[in-house]
Amino acid sequence: MYTLYYSPGTASMLVHLMLLETGAPHRLQLVDIDKQQQKDPAYLRLNPYGVVPTLVLDEQPYTEAAAIAMLLAEHHPESGLVPARDTVAYDLWRQWMLSLSHNLQASFRLWFYPQELGNVSHPEALSQAIQQKIARIWDQLDRHLSQQGPYLLGEQFSCADLYLTMLMRWSRNMPRPATEWPALRALTGRVVQRPAWQRMMEIEAVDPWPRDLQS
Amino acid sequence: MYTLYYSPGTASMLVHLMLLETGAPHRLQLVDIDKQQQKDPAYLRLNPYGVVPTLVLDEQPYTEAAAIAMLLAEHHPESGLVPARDTVAYDLWRQWMLSLSHNLQASFRLWFYPQELGNVSHPEALSQAIQQKIARIWDQLDRHLSQQGPYLLGEQFSCADLYLTMLMRWSRNMPRPATEWPALRALTGRVVQRPAWQRMMEIEAVDPWPRDLQS
Ligand SMILES: N[C@@H](CCC(=O)N[C@@H](CS)C(=O)NCC(=O)O)C(=O)O
Ligand SMILES: N[C@@H](CCC(=O)N[C@@H](CS)C(=O)NCC(=O)O)C(=O)O
Repeated sequence: MYTLYYSPGTASMLVHLMLLETGAPHRLQLVDIDKQQQKDPAYLRLNPYGVVPTLVLDEQPYTEAAAIAMLLAEHHPESGLVPARDTVAYDLWRQWMLSLSHNLQASFRLWFYPQELGNVSHPEALSQAIQQKIARIWDQLDRHLSQQGPYLLGEQFSCADLYLTMLMRWSRNMPRPATEWPALRALTGRVVQRPAWQRMMEIEAVDPWPRDLQS
Repeated sequence: MYTLYYSPGTASMLVHLMLLETGAPHRLQLVDIDKQQQKDPAYLRLNPYGVVPTLVLDEQPYTEAAAIAMLLAEHHPESGLVPARDTVAYDLWRQWMLSLSHNLQASFRLWFYPQELGNVSHPEALSQAIQQKIARIWDQLDRHLSQQGPYLLGEQFSCADLYLTMLMRWSRNMPRPATEWPALRALTGRVVQRPAWQRMMEIEAVDPWPRDLQS
């Protein structure tokens, strides 16, 4: 039985989605970020950085959204969210998970947490620079998907596509959201139709997205 | 036969070190960053972000230093750089690799590339904020190692320790380098004694580090 410490709409969404995709028995434990519960001493013992998600299994806490998603994909290979081990596809899957975490998720952290760069809100030049950093990543991903898609691993769907879709959602209030890139938009269209995505959106009760693709 | 596209002292150092640790046959291909060779069209076909490292195996390029290190650890399990699969240690190893990439390496990128945040050089407040972001990570890592070390996985050495040591080296010219934290310093002392580390430093011919620990 897994326990997921989560907050709706945040990085824990990927892990929640993975639990639904795999059908793994789990319970959800809300961490109220508005009340700063992620900085409670008891929670910090599970997750020293004081962020969500944390997944607990057999009393062992696991952190880092991308790493937890990989853990779940590998603990539940029958769900088809990870290529077979010892294949080129597996090595590329690992690379995508790392790349989305290092390049994209870390850039969004800058976008959403100006205080970590010493500002209450970003000065215009810095805001522009972060937007450009993210837009360059959309450019690369869109080019890759248009040439070698429809999924990050070609014909093979994996949890990297779920991760990317969650990260695309985070851009919805930016001047140029990810869904303006055609191949990224096409991927979104596929992922949001999955029953696990729809169930996750229902449970987390966050804003429907993308508005114009929703049925 | 692996081909590593590298530049001395950069993120490619981890991959170089892994090639030496595993004893895998390889050749080194210098990418001259001073000449901006990482942005050459031919290189961008291997590595669309135009960064080092890239590792090529059987004509397939692999990118993202942490992902490549994991690939090499898993292709060469006899080298003991990764715990056995399907164990808690393996899941924690994956988590450390992701965490070092997302939290630490990505923060160093901000430190070393002010232009990506729209500046020629960082304004003082931003420079301080990035230093604090990195120092908080050293705090966490040092606490973990002092309680559960000597390695990130306890008694078990892995490529996560090599990765961390490379990243510590990057702090050597910061006002407060990682080696000022005692447990981090102790880890450094162990890693720099490894023959592969010493051979790598010789080949890359970068500044000796840390000066006061060097034999
Ligand atoms: N590297 C972490 C980052 C998670 C993260 O940044 N979570 C955010 C929400 S998306 C959070 O908990 N923010 C609250 C805070 O930082 O205080 C992961 O991937 O799990
Ligand atoms: N996510 C990449 C980042 C690599 C990276 O930032 N490399 C730097 C050197 S440490 C680089 O190539 N810089 C040259 C540039 O960005 O133009 C990885 O881990 O491989």
